Amino acid sequence: MAKTKTLDDLFYDTLKDIYYAERKVLRTLPKMVRGAESPELKAAFEKHIGETEGQVERLQRVFEIIGKRAQGKTCDAIDGITAEGAEILEEYEGTPVLDAGLIASAQAVEHYEITRYGSLKRWAQLLGHDEAAKLLDETLTEEKQTDQALTALADASVNAQGLKA
Amino acid sequence: MAKTKTLDDLFYDTLKDIYYAERKVLRTLPKMVRGAESPELKAAFEKHIGETEGQVERLQRVFEIIGKRAQGKTCDAIDGITAEGAEILEEYEGTPVLDAGLIASAQAVEHYEITRYGSLKRWAQLLGHDEAAKLLDETLTEEKQTDQALTALADASVNAQGLKA
Repeated sequence: MAKTKTLDDLFYDTLKDIYYAERKVLRTLPKMVRGAESPELKAAFEKHIGETEGQVERLQRVFEIIGKRAQGKTCDAIDGITAEGAEILEEYEGTPVLDAGLIASAQAVEHYEITRYGSLKRWAQLLGHDEAAKLLDETLTEEKQTDQALTALADASVNAQGLKA
Repeated sequence: MAKTKTLDDLFYDTLKDIYYAERKVLRTLPKMVRGAESPELKAAFEKHIGETEGQVERLQRVFEIIGKRAQGKTCDAIDGITAEGAEILEEYEGTPVLDAGLIASAQAVEHYEITRYGSLKRWAQLLGHDEAAKLLDETLTEEKQTDQALTALADASVNAQGLKA
């Protein structure tokens, strides 16, 4: 009989899910940089490439801490979210609301990451992986800050630019 | 030549996206109710069915306000997020961590909705659809509350139950 799955399994499965997601985002961000109209939004996406690289490294350290190989597992959620972002890039190219659409797409990514890191941090604490919980919390804080920065950017310029159309 | 897309188009497209998503969630929640182990989690999901019905009605009123037909548009993001939830239901059935996994899945749905309603509310305000913005804000508040209630439920019992395994 198969061994009953435990919180360790749920933690590991979810870690593989977000590891796949972060690396997918890393491949997607350069397209967002190229697509964005405003220099401010290009800069925000570029900054997030560097952050995401750091987040991937943190995940690799968490895999080490739990003594498992760092590997991804297809994440249908991030595939769907990034597919919608690609659609915005295509359908709104050359329009004054492209940036507003790209910000919304990027925020959907951030929120997916926020919820996954929130669960992972909680489970790491319960499992006594204090160092892993700390690393996951660092990324969680970064993702929340990125989300807020995107909202501020939207409020400050991008949405109003879209309205002028 | 095709007319350039505007913020009205982005608002309408995103409204169709979340309308599809809410109705998909409505079809998914009964499976979560049946799957959940703890009576508290079953009750939380049942409560959210009623809320989601109200949220669908609010969206129908927003479609009316902007003078467009209420219709959904396939949302790859919610399809992916709910597919992952179905996987948890299947892979963790009969294990003590099923509820922890279901809560995480439900929170991924909530966060997707939070980010979409946040964008829609902002755009409704910019477009001068004040009544629509108010309706969208009511749902946004509910989704945030649901997310917090799920975190509280996880902290209070479900995760600890999972650890006992």
